[in-house]
Amino acid sequence: MSGGIDSATVAMMAVRQGFSVHAITFSYGQRHAIEIDCARRVAAQIGIAGHIVIDLNHAVFASSSLVAESGIPVPHGRDYAHSADIPSTYVPARNILFLSYALAYGETVGAHDIFIGVNAIDYSGYPDCRPEFIEAFARMADLGTRSGAEGRGFVIHAPLVDMTKAEIIAHGHALGVDYSLTHSCYDPDREGRSCGTCDSCRIRRAGFSDAHLADPTRYRSAS
Amino acid sequence: MSGGIDSATVAMMAVRQGFSVHAITFSYGQRHAIEIDCARRVAAQIGIAGHIVIDLNHAVFASSSLVAESGIPVPHGRDYAHSADIPSTYVPARNILFLSYALAYGETVGAHDIFIGVNAIDYSGYPDCRPEFIEAFARMADLGTRSGAEGRGFVIHAPLVDMTKAEIIAHGHALGVDYSLTHSCYDPDREGRSCGTCDSCRIRRAGFSDAHLADPTRYRSAS
Repeated sequence: MSGGIDSATVAMMAVRQGFSVHAITFSYGQRHAIEIDCARRVAAQIGIAGHIVIDLNHAVFASSSLVAESGIPVPHGRDYAHSADIPSTYVPARNILFLSYALAYGETVGAHDIFIGVNAIDYSGYPDCRPEFIEAFARMADLGTRSGAEGRGFVIHAPLVDMTKAEIIAHGHALGVDYSLTHSCYDPDREGRSCGTCDSCRIRRAGFSDAHLADPTRYRSAS
Repeated sequence: MSGGIDSATVAMMAVRQGFSVHAITFSYGQRHAIEIDCARRVAAQIGIAGHIVIDLNHAVFASSSLVAESGIPVPHGRDYAHSADIPSTYVPARNILFLSYALAYGETVGAHDIFIGVNAIDYSGYPDCRPEFIEAFARMADLGTRSGAEGRGFVIHAPLVDMTKAEIIAHGHALGVDYSLTHSCYDPDREGRSCGTCDSCRIRRAGFSDAHLADPTRYRSAS
């Protein structure tokens, strides 16, 4: 649960499907540390069973512009929709680590269903958001865990994988997600206001616009 | 690099093959925290390029008897060689997390070869030590990382996977590993002396005996 649109929507979908949801938020030195506060508020609004925050070692991610101590600037105004490149905001093996922790925690709390909010728009060049990656992870998980060896493996749910951002927002809005609690910007200012120009802000703005819903985000300027 | 026999041997094999080795040691609240000191001494003896220690969140492993705060006793005198059960010393998704961190760190430092010391004897019921798990992990890694997406993926080396403990010890001894620096016991006393009766001690003792080499381990008694 990152505090963004996708994980909030997925958590609400799981709750509405009757799952008792134990959320994990990861802290890895990201510039947008404000998202951890957002994740707590989103978790409270959705009404989940448990929520833990796991600190990851920052050093292993030092090549990503999303990690503040990298000193690498976040790109603004990039043509994310038409670029085949993997952006500098790529965090090495991030979803692999997130899902691996979910497996460990799942085995500890007795959960067999893992929900992750990857989707095609958020892909934007991130290899670890592709359906074929999720499928390969699930197969690996069944071979490498007690649950898998004992015949009851894991189901990795990625219900947003084929949805556009507008569809995600419309669906979550209908389910009752309060998106004013969520945060998307990669590069917020000290007051937590969004830049409006990084990939993540632009995808978010276009999503609300295309869903014909008001964008509740506080932007730095009226740009 | 755990501070045990297998990772010491694998690290030495990688060094002798000409790799510049960056080792990772994981701290996860294990009873045998002494192994982290051993890992530092082993790393120094072998002569590697870099060594980091990563703290994992202990809460996600709380169902394992290897984690001190679990309060679950480590089994002694278990018939490990003839048991099909996964022992209580199983740490949920441990090798999945270890390898996932290695992918992230590998992408950050520009490494494409990952060495892990899993083997058939150490398997002892651990699903994440099987060759088919390693193969599935490698496939997932190529789909979920920048290195894989850009056409140069990872090679996961598990050179001990089909070796007996005696073969591993004999091979490492010939390469110059100083096994007196290594530690295997799951349940050492405060002075760091080994119990001699947990699975790990018994596999180690049998390994030195079968390799016709003196076991340099300090045991609590002459049992």
